[in-house]
Amino acid sequence: MIIDCHGHYTTAPPQLGDYRDAQQAALASDPDATGAKGSISISDDEIRESVEGAQLKLQRERGTDLTIFSPRASWMGHHIGNAHTSRFWSEHCNELIRRVCDLYPANFAPVCQLPQSPAAPIDSSVRELRRCVDEMGFIGCNLNPDPSGGFWTGPPLDDRSFWPLYEAMCELDVPAMIHVSDTCNPNFHTTGSHYLGADTTAFMQVLTSGLFKDFPDLRFIIPHGGGAVPYHWGRFRGIAQDKGWQTLDELMANVWFDTCVYHQPGIDLLVDVVPVDNILFASEMVGAVRGIDPQTGHFYDDTRRYIEGADLSDADRSKIFEDNVRRVFPRLRTDASGGGQ
Amino acid sequence: MIIDCHGHYTTAPPQLGDYRDAQQAALASDPDATGAKGSISISDDEIRESVEGAQLKLQRERGTDLTIFSPRASWMGHHIGNAHTSRFWSEHCNELIRRVCDLYPANFAPVCQLPQSPAAPIDSSVRELRRCVDEMGFIGCNLNPDPSGGFWTGPPLDDRSFWPLYEAMCELDVPAMIHVSDTCNPNFHTTGSHYLGADTTAFMQVLTSGLFKDFPDLRFIIPHGGGAVPYHWGRFRGIAQDKGWQTLDELMANVWFDTCVYHQPGIDLLVDVVPVDNILFASEMVGAVRGIDPQTGHFYDDTRRYIEGADLSDADRSKIFEDNVRRVFPRLRTDASGGGQ
Repeated sequence: MIIDCHGHYTTAPPQLGDYRDAQQAALASDPDATGAKGSISISDDEIRESVEGAQLKLQRERGTDLTIFSPRASWMGHHIGNAHTSRFWSEHCNELIRRVCDLYPANFAPVCQLPQSPAAPIDSSVRELRRCVDEMGFIGCNLNPDPSGGFWTGPPLDDRSFWPLYEAMCELDVPAMIHVSDTCNPNFHTTGSHYLGADTTAFMQVLTSGLFKDFPDLRFIIPHGGGAVPYHWGRFRGIAQDKGWQTLDELMANVWFDTCVYHQPGIDLLVDVVPVDNILFASEMVGAVRGIDPQTGHFYDDTRRYIEGADLSDADRSKIFEDNVRRVFPRLRTDASGGGQ
Repeated sequence: MIIDCHGHYTTAPPQLGDYRDAQQAALASDPDATGAKGSISISDDEIRESVEGAQLKLQRERGTDLTIFSPRASWMGHHIGNAHTSRFWSEHCNELIRRVCDLYPANFAPVCQLPQSPAAPIDSSVRELRRCVDEMGFIGCNLNPDPSGGFWTGPPLDDRSFWPLYEAMCELDVPAMIHVSDTCNPNFHTTGSHYLGADTTAFMQVLTSGLFKDFPDLRFIIPHGGGAVPYHWGRFRGIAQDKGWQTLDELMANVWFDTCVYHQPGIDLLVDVVPVDNILFASEMVGAVRGIDPQTGHFYDDTRRYIEGADLSDADRSKIFEDNVRRVFPRLRTDASGGGQ
């Protein structure tokens, strides 16, 4: 079985975007507008149509089985509005993910976004995480290390303000993918430099802080192949050694990297330097890169091909495709037909 | 001949730090304090002592010949103080580099820091660049893409405010290494995540902006192996293709990567995906990582070993060690004894 641990609902019906546009229009005239949650009218058929020609088609074509599916990352937009609007928006996005998974339980398993908001307490995110996991069967969450949208004005991930969330994650036994959203800072390009920079930043925050000494069961996934980390594995090993921090090997008790690296040499490096137990298959398909690589004739983000092409034993390949993902997402249940929960 | 294009004077005598401390003390009581340039008393013997046991010893031990040498990057601190204090500080740092190169013309060639300051016009940097190149024989400069020190509140590199500097660089025929300084943002670790994130950010800024169409002769060096770029070469190729930007091959007319990647698999990836003509040998020795890698028994930053160990022809290795560096730094002159200018 091949489980893709990193997929976003980038093809949601337009009513979702319309809802967000209306929220932003209200916020433009009153930044403190709370509004109401309201409703979004999307039919099951519209949901089917939104994924049949996209994620489901690509699963079939690429031979992957199940996608761990969350709301569109670039649309989380935690820097937009306030704690109220962020909450209503997150609830709708998560409920829509639940509906996708209900319609296609064999193909998708749900991960939630959190209603973070700059300078707002994390309590709202804890409540939404509990609602999603306890009441709606979600198996993980996406945690934004920079709710300011590219200005990095909030505290780092080891700050105690995050601890109630980590306590809930440990209690619920769910991991977080550390994933930023859109940037409103013109210095950064969202999927080009902001995502990769944030991945490296998050890794460095947990390495320097020793956060996992306080949360030995906490599990973080660093997406996009870990940003710059595997390419600079020697640099990070060396800095940790110079400073007397925990070793990278020790950190691997709590940190995993996905395989969203869109060329063979990058994947070869990843599987060469990162312990195989800490690599999770992922493509983030229908995401940052949608074209076909003229050098290979295949989609850049068809990462299964790179894993197949890497120098790995069958056992190690199986760990990356399935076993490790199940270990990191213990709430993932697949039935006899091979489906998601 | 082996030319290391990326070395900073991290071992300067303590009087340099004392000068900066005094500046900061004055600024603490009055943020608008301009002070005076003043003087720093350092003897030739003190300079000799500061490099004999460090950079010069390592050159001999590692078999490199010449280091392109600039002020300590993490100390540029453009976010500290104002345009006046930044100017005085930069002038002193650059003059000290000139003295090192005068004492060891066969071992060091000078690159300057610029007196950038948040929101200040670039004119001061243009003046200092001209002074260093025209009057003191400098061969390049370090340009900070984030003078705010980790908050990225200034404009991106393609902003027209930078253009007078680029015009001067083209006229003087000198390149810039795009190198941030210390971060005062607790989200980032200076040499771990801030440096690498900035490298990726700078690359993306020039890719998205098409800056080099306006400055076809401008040359940028992205240090630290290009941050995350080579590891995600497929991602960047794919995004550029999706968006219809210039290709990465086209960008290689103006952009080079150094070899400050501190393990063999990283260097193997770099030389595999980046055109060999765009790779410049560098170690940034006595820099971010100072220890010995227990896996190899050699210094992490002894990057010559990785280049020697990579799958390269002698001709390509010679390009990386020398030919490309001379092409990017045409003002570099070495005399018959193999020395720097």
